[in-house]
Amino acid sequence: MKQTIEDFKQYVERITMFKQAMAILAFDSNTIAPDGGLEQRAKRSGFFELEIFNMYISETMKQHLDALAPHISSLDDDVKAMYRLCKDKYDSGTKIPPELVKEFAELTEESSKAWENARKNANFAEFAPFLKRLVDLQKKLLEYRADEMPVDGTAYDILLDDYEDDMTTEKYDKFFEGLKAVIVPLIKKVLASEKKIDTSFRNFKVDTSTQRKIAEFIANKVGYDLNCGYIGESEHPFSCGSDSTDARITTNYHEDDFISSLYSVLHECGHAIYEQGASENLVGTYLGEGGTMGMHESQSRFYENVIGRSLPFWQSITNELKELLPDEFSHVTPLMFYEFSNQVKNSFIRIEADELTYCLHVIIRYEIEKMLFSGNCEVDDLPNIWNQKYQEYLDITPTDDAVGVLQDVHWSEGLFGYFPSYALGSAYAAQFLSYMQKDFNLDETILNGDFSKIRSWLREKIHAHGCMYTTEELMKREFGEQLDVKHYAEYLNNKYGKLYGLT
Amino acid sequence: MKQTIEDFKQYVERITMFKQAMAILAFDSNTIAPDGGLEQRAKRSGFFELEIFNMYISETMKQHLDALAPHISSLDDDVKAMYRLCKDKYDSGTKIPPELVKEFAELTEESSKAWENARKNANFAEFAPFLKRLVDLQKKLLEYRADEMPVDGTAYDILLDDYEDDMTTEKYDKFFEGLKAVIVPLIKKVLASEKKIDTSFRNFKVDTSTQRKIAEFIANKVGYDLNCGYIGESEHPFSCGSDSTDARITTNYHEDDFISSLYSVLHECGHAIYEQGASENLVGTYLGEGGTMGMHESQSRFYENVIGRSLPFWQSITNELKELLPDEFSHVTPLMFYEFSNQVKNSFIRIEADELTYCLHVIIRYEIEKMLFSGNCEVDDLPNIWNQKYQEYLDITPTDDAVGVLQDVHWSEGLFGYFPSYALGSAYAAQFLSYMQKDFNLDETILNGDFSKIRSWLREKIHAHGCMYTTEELMKREFGEQLDVKHYAEYLNNKYGKLYGLT
Repeated sequence: MKQTIEDFKQYVERITMFKQAMAILAFDSNTIAPDGGLEQRAKRSGFFELEIFNMYISETMKQHLDALAPHISSLDDDVKAMYRLCKDKYDSGTKIPPELVKEFAELTEESSKAWENARKNANFAEFAPFLKRLVDLQKKLLEYRADEMPVDGTAYDILLDDYEDDMTTEKYDKFFEGLKAVIVPLIKKVLASEKKIDTSFRNFKVDTSTQRKIAEFIANKVGYDLNCGYIGESEHPFSCGSDSTDARITTNYHEDDFISSLYSVLHECGHAIYEQGASENLVGTYLGEGGTMGMHESQSRFYENVIGRSLPFWQSITNELKELLPDEFSHVTPLMFYEFSNQVKNSFIRIEADELTYCLHVIIRYEIEKMLFSGNCEVDDLPNIWNQKYQEYLDITPTDDAVGVLQDVHWSEGLFGYFPSYALGSAYAAQFLSYMQKDFNLDETILNGDFSKIRSWLREKIHAHGCMYTTEELMKREFGEQLDVKHYAEYLNNKYGKLYGLT
Repeated sequence: MKQTIEDFKQYVERITMFKQAMAILAFDSNTIAPDGGLEQRAKRSGFFELEIFNMYISETMKQHLDALAPHISSLDDDVKAMYRLCKDKYDSGTKIPPELVKEFAELTEESSKAWENARKNANFAEFAPFLKRLVDLQKKLLEYRADEMPVDGTAYDILLDDYEDDMTTEKYDKFFEGLKAVIVPLIKKVLASEKKIDTSFRNFKVDTSTQRKIAEFIANKVGYDLNCGYIGESEHPFSCGSDSTDARITTNYHEDDFISSLYSVLHECGHAIYEQGASENLVGTYLGEGGTMGMHESQSRFYENVIGRSLPFWQSITNELKELLPDEFSHVTPLMFYEFSNQVKNSFIRIEADELTYCLHVIIRYEIEKMLFSGNCEVDDLPNIWNQKYQEYLDITPTDDAVGVLQDVHWSEGLFGYFPSYALGSAYAAQFLSYMQKDFNLDETILNGDFSKIRSWLREKIHAHGCMYTTEELMKREFGEQLDVKHYAEYLNNKYGKLYGLT
């Protein structure tokens, strides 16, 4: 049995090597790689995706899985996890024609560039042909996986499950209904309140080189280890890396909005700190990366919002910011920054939205994806539907496609079914906060600048496990409970109640 | 037969995919990859080197080669070239234990970092243990390839041949003797001349951001296509890429020496323009990269020296430089720049040496490598031997290891036997110049800023072929002659005779 396990681990380590290399290549591709190389890069991407795919569905993989199957219950947690993850890939992979996998990878590489250009030109029509091909190809892939559909479910359920084990349209519908019941009335009250937030102080430009310094300062401050990381630049901020020893992030500097980069850095730091926190013995193994997307987003949203949009956080960094920008910040107080970065308003851009309206942005995308994959709308309808939904939920209509349907990178990368994870992540983040508060006072800890205490807590309970456990298993093991939206409701009511004097 | 050829090409394309991916990963590793990831990166590097190695020596490769062998003479040039290159790899590879290949790749990844640190600290002792392991491992590898040694040759001959087909110690000895016969007396005359060159004008700093603009300007000027390239930053400038659609370079900005970066950019542009010039139908094939190292260095030295250190070049760029640095350059003339960048002096650093003393730097390294691989000296002796040779050839003794034995990246990457290619390249560059002059006047062309004319000429005769031909074949095919050091002698005598008024 020992040899069987060793052989399996070695085979999976081989896959890991390829996955890690692909991650670094993807980082390169989305940051510095020249446009001219796109076609050949797309071919390479397809080639290596297919290499990995073929390892998952190989006869060798089947033999490993078959040999382990009868002994599952007695295996160590790590082998059990590798078995579960590979079995999933094997089962779904063996249904799909390999050439479609290659085609999908090649297409996403080209679509990303098309999206980038279309967004620059605020012209959905430039991106539409690519998106059509992506949606059609994804639908085709889902047809091969039709048996994974839950009873009374849709093809979209299969995609949701890819990012979040066992999540379905039915469960998300309930989750979002629960959220809306809290958020919608709260937003109404907030927008009707008489509280005025001073936003005048930020009418100045911060040059890119100073913003780079701010990014590095913020990253170091919250405990992102730059010795095992890197801050790159890209159109859409993302995090990506090989493992805990090399977990990178990107941001995007706008001279007239340094706050935007600051929060994207915090968000991506949350992801990267999660990756960096995997146990040392997981480095180089298949389990050395974070768990589901919901769990990942819980960490990014924790750093961005729970920490980053708190008053103590601004209290702990304002002096240092003033050293970098003495003239501009001479009269700004932490409270002004705090209120400004929590100002609730209906706005176009998801990643720049305040915490409260944020989930509405996610709900809009979720509803659109549901329509798209149930055949209730076509790609060409998307700009209209998008704008209608923004009018319906946020009472505003995007002025063009760049701040509308083209704002997110996800679809261009074939990531359909990903968006709901952001809302799920926000809810988990609030739930983790409530647990953390039992061990120590977060506000005080932030005020003392003791970010390593926060990181250690998260590492011990969450990061250290890599992707060893499903979210359900991890929640049970570490907290003895499952997701409960009440924590998030409480968090939002509490925060915005105080800020807007709603008591 | 058609199917046999198709199958072989497809197999070789597979190797190409891996090689291209490795090149991009190497670029990443040597520019932005974080230190913390070094160990895992070294493992990955070893893993993929071994993957590639195994494809070269596989039973499948043997079958392909065996199937083609009887038909060699009737094959198209491209298949013939792929056969030749793969047969070489197969023949030498099958002698070597695969685990040593992996070990070597892992070691070079770690050694590069150790070298970088040792150089920063100007402390050879920090690098010595790595270099010992590299030399020992290389010697071990050479033992397995002992049958490749020419009659009366040494193990070093095998290394020389790796970078330059059919070059041997015997041939290089003759080549360098020929060079020395010209250079040494010429240097004496130059240093004894009464010509004084004004170097005072460059006592100012140029900040990194302006130097980045200069680098981009120079690169664009000479025809390096940034849409299929990228200018990164690294300790030691290098060029590296996947193929003509993605051929990258790096430079290193020193605020007190903008000329150093300018020439490293020109040098690396020469390499990258070579790569970018491969015929379109070679993209994605095994033949889409440049030929031997000597041929590669001929292109880099052509752009750096033949073009870049000419008076017309400075005449064609000085106005634009003045726009970037109006105060600093207000009183500087093209002639001052020209004379300054051709000032002959005995100096420590190879890559910053003038064209005339440059080859002495190469000869020193060649002689040391010969000693090292014939067992006539040990790694620990290197700093002393290095300094003695500098005293002997250049009449100066390096002040520390950073400007002495630690200055070059090559050994840390296991590149033993590479240095002679630089001198060979310089000689070829001068030879190409003499051919080019028959078609058009280079000085005039540079003065007119018509760099695309130069590039087209080089592309047609050299770049377009990728690595289809050996240097000997290419020289015969395009120019009907082989290497002749007389062109280089003439070029140097002519250039420095005029500049220093030696006639």
